[in-house]
Amino acid sequence: MARLTLEQYYNFIDPKSVTIIGVSEKTGPGMFHPLQNMLKDGCQARIYPVNIQGRDILGQKVYKSVLNLPEVPDLAFITVARNAVLGAVKECLQKGIKSLIVLSQGFDDADEEGKALQREISQAIAGTGTRLLGPNTLGLINALDNFHVSFVDSDVPPKASGVICQSGVFLVGSADLTAGMGVGIDIGNASDIDFADVLSCFGQDPRIKIIDIHMEGIRGGGDFLEIAAQVSREKPILVLKTGKSETGSKAAISHSGSLTGEDHVFEAAFRKAGIMRMADLEEFQDLNKAFLTYKGLKGKRVGIITISGGAGIAAIDALSQYGLEVARLSRETLERMQEFFPPWFQVTNPVDMWPAGVKKELKEIYVRLLQILLDDPQVDAVICIYGANKMSGFDPMAVITEGVISEAKRRTDKPVLPWVIGINQYGISRELEQSGVAIGLPNPERIARVLARLYQYHHEIKDRSEEKPLVFQDVQRQLVAGIIDNARKNSVKILGSEVLEILQAYGINVISTRLAGNKEEAFLLAGEIGYPVVMKISSPQVVHKTDSGGVRLNIKNETELSLAYDEMLAAIKANVPEARIDGVFLQKYQPAHLEVIIGSKRDEEFGPVIVFGQGGIHAEVHKDVTFRLAPLTAKEAREMIGELKSSKMFYGWRGMPAANTDALAESIGRVAQLVVDFPEITELDINPLAVGADAVVALDARAVIK
Amino acid sequence: MARLTLEQYYNFIDPKSVTIIGVSEKTGPGMFHPLQNMLKDGCQARIYPVNIQGRDILGQKVYKSVLNLPEVPDLAFITVARNAVLGAVKECLQKGIKSLIVLSQGFDDADEEGKALQREISQAIAGTGTRLLGPNTLGLINALDNFHVSFVDSDVPPKASGVICQSGVFLVGSADLTAGMGVGIDIGNASDIDFADVLSCFGQDPRIKIIDIHMEGIRGGGDFLEIAAQVSREKPILVLKTGKSETGSKAAISHSGSLTGEDHVFEAAFRKAGIMRMADLEEFQDLNKAFLTYKGLKGKRVGIITISGGAGIAAIDALSQYGLEVARLSRETLERMQEFFPPWFQVTNPVDMWPAGVKKELKEIYVRLLQILLDDPQVDAVICIYGANKMSGFDPMAVITEGVISEAKRRTDKPVLPWVIGINQYGISRELEQSGVAIGLPNPERIARVLARLYQYHHEIKDRSEEKPLVFQDVQRQLVAGIIDNARKNSVKILGSEVLEILQAYGINVISTRLAGNKEEAFLLAGEIGYPVVMKISSPQVVHKTDSGGVRLNIKNETELSLAYDEMLAAIKANVPEARIDGVFLQKYQPAHLEVIIGSKRDEEFGPVIVFGQGGIHAEVHKDVTFRLAPLTAKEAREMIGELKSSKMFYGWRGMPAANTDALAESIGRVAQLVVDFPEITELDINPLAVGADAVVALDARAVIK
Repeated sequence: MARLTLEQYYNFIDPKSVTIIGVSEKTGPGMFHPLQNMLKDGCQARIYPVNIQGRDILGQKVYKSVLNLPEVPDLAFITVARNAVLGAVKECLQKGIKSLIVLSQGFDDADEEGKALQREISQAIAGTGTRLLGPNTLGLINALDNFHVSFVDSDVPPKASGVICQSGVFLVGSADLTAGMGVGIDIGNASDIDFADVLSCFGQDPRIKIIDIHMEGIRGGGDFLEIAAQVSREKPILVLKTGKSETGSKAAISHSGSLTGEDHVFEAAFRKAGIMRMADLEEFQDLNKAFLTYKGLKGKRVGIITISGGAGIAAIDALSQYGLEVARLSRETLERMQEFFPPWFQVTNPVDMWPAGVKKELKEIYVRLLQILLDDPQVDAVICIYGANKMSGFDPMAVITEGVISEAKRRTDKPVLPWVIGINQYGISRELEQSGVAIGLPNPERIARVLARLYQYHHEIKDRSEEKPLVFQDVQRQLVAGIIDNARKNSVKILGSEVLEILQAYGINVISTRLAGNKEEAFLLAGEIGYPVVMKISSPQVVHKTDSGGVRLNIKNETELSLAYDEMLAAIKANVPEARIDGVFLQKYQPAHLEVIIGSKRDEEFGPVIVFGQGGIHAEVHKDVTFRLAPLTAKEAREMIGELKSSKMFYGWRGMPAANTDALAESIGRVAQLVVDFPEITELDINPLAVGADAVVALDARAVIK
Repeated sequence: MARLTLEQYYNFIDPKSVTIIGVSEKTGPGMFHPLQNMLKDGCQARIYPVNIQGRDILGQKVYKSVLNLPEVPDLAFITVARNAVLGAVKECLQKGIKSLIVLSQGFDDADEEGKALQREISQAIAGTGTRLLGPNTLGLINALDNFHVSFVDSDVPPKASGVICQSGVFLVGSADLTAGMGVGIDIGNASDIDFADVLSCFGQDPRIKIIDIHMEGIRGGGDFLEIAAQVSREKPILVLKTGKSETGSKAAISHSGSLTGEDHVFEAAFRKAGIMRMADLEEFQDLNKAFLTYKGLKGKRVGIITISGGAGIAAIDALSQYGLEVARLSRETLERMQEFFPPWFQVTNPVDMWPAGVKKELKEIYVRLLQILLDDPQVDAVICIYGANKMSGFDPMAVITEGVISEAKRRTDKPVLPWVIGINQYGISRELEQSGVAIGLPNPERIARVLARLYQYHHEIKDRSEEKPLVFQDVQRQLVAGIIDNARKNSVKILGSEVLEILQAYGINVISTRLAGNKEEAFLLAGEIGYPVVMKISSPQVVHKTDSGGVRLNIKNETELSLAYDEMLAAIKANVPEARIDGVFLQKYQPAHLEVIIGSKRDEEFGPVIVFGQGGIHAEVHKDVTFRLAPLTAKEAREMIGELKSSKMFYGWRGMPAANTDALAESIGRVAQLVVDFPEITELDINPLAVGADAVVALDARAVIK
């Protein structure tokens, strides 16, 4: 199905004429009556109610069938019981209606019968050029043009935002959840119109400045990401992803597979596309207000002016929690401020204005200090703290209007965020809201979170460079294709030693590995390789080699080799009785301070997810792992190394030489290229990859192919 | 100074008579005038204004000196400039006034002159029996008896809470910060009355049901904790600790010292005393409402009734984030509910009532389903989700009054928490507030956080058992005292090998260690111990043995020993040229899968903090460390093991045998006893302690004594 065009989109959100099919004769309070709601809202479109009785409702002429309508309406809103939906859709098609909304529920959201009905509807519209929203949608609300099609009425404060959701609560509750909205579309079961369609149109609609997504799950993730990656350069995209269950990853065979939960995949996908994921509903609401109010944020240096030293300290804690800085004020600023204070008080940031303000004109001093703070070139944003109490005649509203609002208007390049203690008193919230230049949040943590997100959008998302994914030309694609074909012919699903060959073909340094069929061959090969050596069992049945006793490191001589060989074979026979033993692999033993894991897991919607982490205990116990969607840019590969909790171990830790992170980043990039080139590889582990000061080398690897 | 008595406390918060010293003649708006505020509030106490002019103010007779007053007032409120405070205090003492509040600032909070002034004031009141609040306090507010002494006026909603703070903003902003209060006391610089004093009185004041503390720092931490540990069994104590700077820990010499930041100490102290630490101001406010509303919470199983499936999913995410459970409904409950739903809809928890409610009597169904949910014995609390919109005549207030409030009154044993989307509309917040049986929070995360805290208080703090600290009788205290005395005589501050002797004297299993003065002795001793051995340098100047090349593990024979010996001496000479080398220590090499660190750091306020963590990389990179104040109960020692992020490694991980956690917990307890018995030990490290299936053994240790 082609993408929803802008013309089709306007047909849905602002039609000239609309038919409501299945209008109930029961009207009045509590009846969830779309016609009644539209009339109440003063809908400008021509409305054609349809039901089988054909008797007037609410003074409106009702038609017995859509086929009888005097014109072809732009939009049909179908509200009949689920068994009647297919018939209604077919009549709409016959009439030539191009936009359908199916509100009715009981389809993919319900039982097998419902799923079958939804398939039939999809088949009916396929190839007709008619587009369908739903089924199981609450409809859509266009507050910008006052067009609501929904069986609930709602008072939506119009804002320059677009909402795409999978639950109607984000339409009817938008006043609270997203602080109002411009256009909201519930895609419901998304049998036709989906996230990508609406996102693409919101991206083009000039009245939409910020896009909100509520997502429970997605089909067609690739298209969605591609569109989002473009749109996010122009407009902030905020997502609230709900349903964080991790059941999906339990069936994984590889280490990478089991490390990659469903939620990690979404996290990686959102990051790739420049989508900002909201921690909770409160952040969703706060960020909506912030992005529609503040133009930008130049840096992380925050000035604080406060009527309470204690509250200033709380604000410092909040800034530090969100990675922001307490601005160091310039000498000039400090000198200009000091004259307001008694000599025993040394002014600094936070500017505790209480010692200056007592028994003087509190408001004037507050405003003056705020001006001086905003003038400081070393200050990027200002938090203004004071109380909403009208204490001793001090009028907090005057601080808002003559201070916060007037200064925010004067310097639109620097966000001014008041923390008014008691914000909801005395109409301060409302006054701020209406000013359009500052927002009111009730605590410093939420203020700092907003600032951190403004910084993130304006510095890391909006103007991000168009880096191309890494593509290495020296890869031997045919060689890999041959190995995979061969495995498939033999119905092999889990690849072991062959994976090192595949990696080598893709330019990843792998350890030289020799297969010895018996103990005598092992002596011979170990002599050629040179002690110390590593010995590993070769058996297709042994999946977890270390756990089964199939790995021995640092074998120093023939005596140790002989003993290790016997012990290993005994261990495998005991632990994996069904194992067919092909012999043992021998490798040079390379003790490495650092061993990492690079892997991949193919996600059905988003394609290969690249996994990178410190090896062993770090990954398994501390979950010190990071994720990205393939393919990777050079920047992304480097970022993955830097964002491990234990990343300092790469950069010359405790006197160890720094690791060759260039080679490491390259290996990560090559793995990404490999799994993009070969979708047959559903899971891949390099575990471990030894990382040294000079080079990196894959010591063991495994893959699952389909 | 003795603790503040209840009689003294009432003298402060509800005096029969009060003098205000330093009353300004300038009255009117913006003058921060305590007399004016008291008169406006209708203060019941007899008020005696004092200033040097002695002219009437606001129709009140003004005295020139406190010495001229016609009676001895219960309380004096001193507001003069800092240089006049000492004189005013002395006159109050002369008059025989027993309670003083010094509002003036510029003392310990300011420069050296101010610090000296504060000392003089303290000396003046010492031994007189007069108590002093401040200086640098905003005063106190007693909303229960309508007595406010403060230079700001404020409208405080009276609640059954007591507030102790170090910043006046928690008094004047209490409507917002703690959702009102009963009695609020700003201890200011706490030159006399401190946290422990007020906490003790709040604990005894029957009108106070919950105690709120704002703390920036504390002196006299031990007393405070002792009182808090008693009070927290009766009343929830909530603390907002601000100022999380970590500068204090940088000077530490030991590993334990550097791992223990100032904030960890507070964290451990609060836990010890059953104090709940608030994450932010929002939690502070929410928990105040919750503890004054809900009686308790029996378990973690939460039922959800929702008008939106999507919002139900968001609520599940929130429950999981805070360790709560989505209740499994009983079969009977499900059967009773199913009759409200169409046959294609299978009811479950969350109970998505939309399919039942459409086109029926939404409110009646909602209330009925809520009743059934509350009746289920497998449900401990219920979250009710619906929208505040008056959609299609659906009246959300009716759901509140006839549903939430009436059901919450019927079943006070099960908290009912509404998530009303758009809570601030239509007066729903106010209606809930006034009901006294349910609170309104704007998102599921805050609701889940409240439930988790209710569970914590009622299951882990309120009725916690009175376990006695571990005291082992078999310790050799004299032996340790001798070692420490000896070190002091020799001006040794950092103890090395002696620490193993100290540990052994306290019943901790240590590895046998022998000192070899030269290579020949090393051969001899290694032979006696039996290869493989560990060799460590013995030198008082070598503090970081491993980093300086002073540790060699797994030496297998004489050849390796000889080589290692030469290399070690060369390394030490190169790395620590000033080192005096006493020889090398030899120990049996005991490879251990698990190595932990047990340590201690003495905090000036709270005494010894016990540190426990996985050794090496776990502690240093992943900060996988936990903290408790000494002494420890057996339960606390076991908890420390269990709460490491990597704790599963102790319990038979990846086929390894389970570690002897009994022996490990005992060792932790013995370390705690040691550092309690010997306050001279300011820092202590056992690093590593090898943990095996049978026993634990300290391999190396270090201590700092003062």
